[in-house]
Amino acid sequence: MASLDLSAPAPALTAALVDVPSVSGNEGELADAVEAALRPVPHLSVDRNGNAVVARTSLGRSQRVIVAGHLDTVPIAGNVPSRAEGTTLHGCGSCDMKSGVAVALRLAAHLAEPSRDVTYVFYDCEEVEAERNGVLRLSRQRPDLLAADFAVLMEPTGAVIEGGCQGTLQADVTARGRRAHSARSWQGHNAIHDAGGILDVLRSYQPRKPEVDGLSYHEGLNAVGISGGVAGNVIPDECVVRVNFRFAPDRTAEQAAGHVRSLFSGFGVEVVDVAPAARPGLTDPAAASLLGVVGGPPRAKLGWTDVARFATLGMPAVNYGPGDPEVAHTPGEHVDTAEIAECEAKMRAWLTA
Amino acid sequence: MASLDLSAPAPALTAALVDVPSVSGNEGELADAVEAALRPVPHLSVDRNGNAVVARTSLGRSQRVIVAGHLDTVPIAGNVPSRAEGTTLHGCGSCDMKSGVAVALRLAAHLAEPSRDVTYVFYDCEEVEAERNGVLRLSRQRPDLLAADFAVLMEPTGAVIEGGCQGTLQADVTARGRRAHSARSWQGHNAIHDAGGILDVLRSYQPRKPEVDGLSYHEGLNAVGISGGVAGNVIPDECVVRVNFRFAPDRTAEQAAGHVRSLFSGFGVEVVDVAPAARPGLTDPAAASLLGVVGGPPRAKLGWTDVARFATLGMPAVNYGPGDPEVAHTPGEHVDTAEIAECEAKMRAWLTA
Repeated sequence: MASLDLSAPAPALTAALVDVPSVSGNEGELADAVEAALRPVPHLSVDRNGNAVVARTSLGRSQRVIVAGHLDTVPIAGNVPSRAEGTTLHGCGSCDMKSGVAVALRLAAHLAEPSRDVTYVFYDCEEVEAERNGVLRLSRQRPDLLAADFAVLMEPTGAVIEGGCQGTLQADVTARGRRAHSARSWQGHNAIHDAGGILDVLRSYQPRKPEVDGLSYHEGLNAVGISGGVAGNVIPDECVVRVNFRFAPDRTAEQAAGHVRSLFSGFGVEVVDVAPAARPGLTDPAAASLLGVVGGPPRAKLGWTDVARFATLGMPAVNYGPGDPEVAHTPGEHVDTAEIAECEAKMRAWLTA
Repeated sequence: MASLDLSAPAPALTAALVDVPSVSGNEGELADAVEAALRPVPHLSVDRNGNAVVARTSLGRSQRVIVAGHLDTVPIAGNVPSRAEGTTLHGCGSCDMKSGVAVALRLAAHLAEPSRDVTYVFYDCEEVEAERNGVLRLSRQRPDLLAADFAVLMEPTGAVIEGGCQGTLQADVTARGRRAHSARSWQGHNAIHDAGGILDVLRSYQPRKPEVDGLSYHEGLNAVGISGGVAGNVIPDECVVRVNFRFAPDRTAEQAAGHVRSLFSGFGVEVVDVAPAARPGLTDPAAASLLGVVGGPPRAKLGWTDVARFATLGMPAVNYGPGDPEVAHTPGEHVDTAEIAECEAKMRAWLTA
């Protein structure tokens, strides 16, 4: 079994974590190593659930915060083991998000008396379909382990606090027609031609850029798929456009669905999936305190992240961690070791203030 | 082996033909029966090629005409064996086109001294992809058997002469964009949205209805397929519209392709398949003579048929046969027995005039 040395500096620990492959669904070895490294720490109580490991202090503080990171990565693309080049560490998961996990592991091992009680959550299957997500499983099977007042998800943000996240909705918008032989097309009604009306709406849509709790969001409405057609000699009777709506946290999921329905009122609209947005939550005292330590203006999170899961559990949550989110999921994924150290220092300062 | 009685009236012979199943690719038993029935006829020389049977008179007439019909049918849909109901004969192939084949077999057997030499062509695989077509195979392997001045294809036309046929062209018209995460769609370029420009062209297209050699055609330009999309969270970089152009016989295949390319000049256009149109050929003396016997105004053929193959072999050709083309390929396929008798009488009159 891989063994992790939590006394090593966070960049070296990040490299060690990258060197234990943990593609979604195969986090077992890394979860075992994390559990084995945390079990001996006297100020922590450790729980295991599937390939999630939860470690908690119990100091009777008035507030409890979650510090969370996922153990899994996207598939390896010739980028394991890790490779250091000056102050840059390359490798699968170096950015998303084993550097954040390394910081959280270091805090867990070395902060015996944080000013707030801390629940460290290391979980599985963040990079795959929602049903397999480790935080979702914990919220169903062990909600007691997730009880807290505030959460920091150490996803890569370039060491900037990113508040909340936009919601995402998938809908199938359907144009219907009437089949006919294409040699006598006027006897039918071409559904693909009618879908031009759906694309008209998308092409002319002016997305909002609302400010929510002081952060600027940017919505988006896009076709992400289209299909139609029966055979080369048949006028098609159906054309379906899969539409993705990214919506700011000033809309509920229901409002987002209503907006999409009203935009395509002349067509069939079926909402096939919706994940709610999360408000930034930066007015929460714990968030304000973290913001004071980290400094700099916070940013809105445009992509959907697990902060929304914590939001639905009733607690404000932010993203904050080392690594440029733009290089996540790329074969050239890497992280600046100075950013890892900076995040560790600031999280430590916050949790001891 | 099935045996055919060519002395039976054409409606009874049609029923006998329907009762020998011959879905495309499985015409062997019916081709054997046709060959066996024609071999003993003293005024015919008979050739077999695959599941095609060609029977010719050789009277040294100044003109030779082809009378052709395909032996195959679309898949059976609970409509074999045949079923007579008053003057209506039901069954798979009753309309398309075993009634026409019955007429041709009767003419072959009983017209010992036609006024024009006649080549009767019974062939396979008309209802499936062009590469398997029996006339195409004969034109490559035994062009000598297809030498003639004029052809009558006894496809169902409701006993009206249908001249020529429209051509058909398939092209893939492609819009290209740039991928991006759909949470930050403005960093990419949505190819499906751009495909709206392709649909704009299709929606506003005004098809021509040209008159060619006295017949009215009706062109059509239609999307018959559309596809695009990478994943639910990705701005798509490609969208392909499959376009079908049905064109009148006053355009060549090359002109039709050029027309489609010019319509979609802002997009990628790949012509994936084109079958040329055939001019009506009604000014040919043999056609004029047939027209005189059949009477009534001739009609333009809008769908593509094998008359275009004869046209590319250099001979004018028309469609003429019993049966309503609208019921072809339907489970309720049927034919009016009076129409069978009418077609036989008129073909006989023409070939003995």
